[in-house]
Amino acid sequence: MAQNQKSGRVTIKEVAEDAGVSVAAVSKVLREAYGVSEALKTKVRASMKKLNYRPLATARGMRGQTFTIGVTFPDLRNPFFADILAGINSALERTQYQLMLGVSLSTPLIEETLIDSMIDRQMDGLILVGTTVNPAFLEPTASRKPLVTIGHHVEGESSFDTVNNDDRLGAILVVRHLVANGYRKIAMLSLNSTTSTLITEREHGYRQAMGDHGLQEHVQILRVGQTLREVQTATRRLLQSPDKPDALFCWTDFIALEVISIATELGLAIPDDLAVVGYDNTMYCDFAQNNLTSVDQSGEVLGLQSARLLIERIRGRQEAEHFVVTPRVVARGSSLAVGGRGMGQGS
Amino acid sequence: MAQNQKSGRVTIKEVAEDAGVSVAAVSKVLREAYGVSEALKTKVRASMKKLNYRPLATARGMRGQTFTIGVTFPDLRNPFFADILAGINSALERTQYQLMLGVSLSTPLIEETLIDSMIDRQMDGLILVGTTVNPAFLEPTASRKPLVTIGHHVEGESSFDTVNNDDRLGAILVVRHLVANGYRKIAMLSLNSTTSTLITEREHGYRQAMGDHGLQEHVQILRVGQTLREVQTATRRLLQSPDKPDALFCWTDFIALEVISIATELGLAIPDDLAVVGYDNTMYCDFAQNNLTSVDQSGEVLGLQSARLLIERIRGRQEAEHFVVTPRVVARGSSLAVGGRGMGQGS
Repeated sequence: MAQNQKSGRVTIKEVAEDAGVSVAAVSKVLREAYGVSEALKTKVRASMKKLNYRPLATARGMRGQTFTIGVTFPDLRNPFFADILAGINSALERTQYQLMLGVSLSTPLIEETLIDSMIDRQMDGLILVGTTVNPAFLEPTASRKPLVTIGHHVEGESSFDTVNNDDRLGAILVVRHLVANGYRKIAMLSLNSTTSTLITEREHGYRQAMGDHGLQEHVQILRVGQTLREVQTATRRLLQSPDKPDALFCWTDFIALEVISIATELGLAIPDDLAVVGYDNTMYCDFAQNNLTSVDQSGEVLGLQSARLLIERIRGRQEAEHFVVTPRVVARGSSLAVGGRGMGQGS
Repeated sequence: MAQNQKSGRVTIKEVAEDAGVSVAAVSKVLREAYGVSEALKTKVRASMKKLNYRPLATARGMRGQTFTIGVTFPDLRNPFFADILAGINSALERTQYQLMLGVSLSTPLIEETLIDSMIDRQMDGLILVGTTVNPAFLEPTASRKPLVTIGHHVEGESSFDTVNNDDRLGAILVVRHLVANGYRKIAMLSLNSTTSTLITEREHGYRQAMGDHGLQEHVQILRVGQTLREVQTATRRLLQSPDKPDALFCWTDFIALEVISIATELGLAIPDDLAVVGYDNTMYCDFAQNNLTSVDQSGEVLGLQSARLLIERIRGRQEAEHFVVTPRVVARGSSLAVGGRGMGQGS
């Protein structure tokens, strides 16, 4: 096999001979050039398969495309990213593109290094999921590589595509749902990020909806990091304070599941003593022991759409596209009206 | 910035001039060659930093190292992989190495394509986590690239390193723990993989321990896939059968959490009607709503060790090393002795 790689590797010439076409024709099929007939594609691909031909990525890299897409995630713990990845994978399934992942651990410096290294490694384009880099870093990056972001909001013109759910609306819908189920002292557990625009949007939606329902006095936003210790400390303090909320809107499911655990340990009944709502509607919400109300932002659709847009960009589209999904609340046991609660009664 | 990349890019020559050393000396520092003095390293790195020099990965690839490590995971949904990744990341933190991830979706064909594509993209070495490829594929792969596996057991000589917990012992400890807590009808929910040696080891340990405790007649192994639907169907059938077990040992936490949900929906009390034990001791086990007994196999240590071994291999070590962690049961509410149960009483 090692020898095969060095000397016995199948060449593009052999594929051309086997298919009875020119080397240039094989090259066109490989590049996915426009105007190649289906018949030619079928013939060449059959020969590639038969001969077990595998194009050298680095050789391709020298000529232009490597057919590799770089995707960055903030971390691997949040199950929402698995949904997005499933969508990206299903978009790439019938293409020549493969993906390489990088994990930034929610650290802007690591993410910038990752992006640079993906550009060095000749990725054809980048998808940044929940990016943490300074927004000012994105424009120059987009001038070097086709770029699509998921979970990042830009205002006005931009040189890259964005794929989002309407985060502001998502937060508004959560407050509306909780108010309809009799909760009034609704606090928000947010992320202490200085760069995340999706967090800004959700906080904005939360404030706006609290105002619309005449609940300004109960507005309370806790911004905490993502480590279990930080979430525990902040949540314990909040739930043991005299000002304890009767509902907690958490910026992601993953944090909401931790909140349910902490509240349970403190002897609070959910949803009687505390309603909990998450965001992302990941598979864990459905588990009977969690039964977590959450906002569905169609992670798989976001992933699918981002890959489609990126391939369009790689093939030459210049104008930015901004794709937005409308979120919806999926109500479950963690926030439904119980006991003495009713429309607008509060606690 | 785009222009800078094409024409204004800082060259190795400029770094050499700035540092007042030869180009060959800079090259040595870049390659991390042996015998380079600390003084030279410091001088050259200071110039690189000052000039914002960034070596071209593909150019480096032509010469030899790309300082990129390829890591494959079966999927992103299983939170255990986040623990392994944290370990790999902390081992690489103070090195020049960066990692690129690939996700095989537990499909051998996708994993083989990923491995090939990582070799094409000149990764310096590979870490395969929970590999699903045919073991016969691994030796030829190792002859092309330094290779370390996590969660794959080999017998005798091999051309790659392995990092494992003792999966057989892990399963034995689970059965011992359950028997000590009064359970006897202990079934195992396993994975329907034809290639996973860690699954073979765990099933072997389970059978052996059941035999040692005189419980052969209760041996029952369900092999199911990883989709929620498959787990639900198989678990419902098992828990509603006349032969319902009183304890279920699940091959990974992620599946055990699903089992808790299904059992709860069926009205079974945990651990009174059914004990549930997982494997991996991921952070979800600790959540009060799960309270899941699990086997700790030190995921972070496995990741850390795999990266260390891989770098040794890249630097020239030839003999295979096989690192093994001793697992331990972390007992929680999902399996503790309750009600009428006692030592050896059973149900």
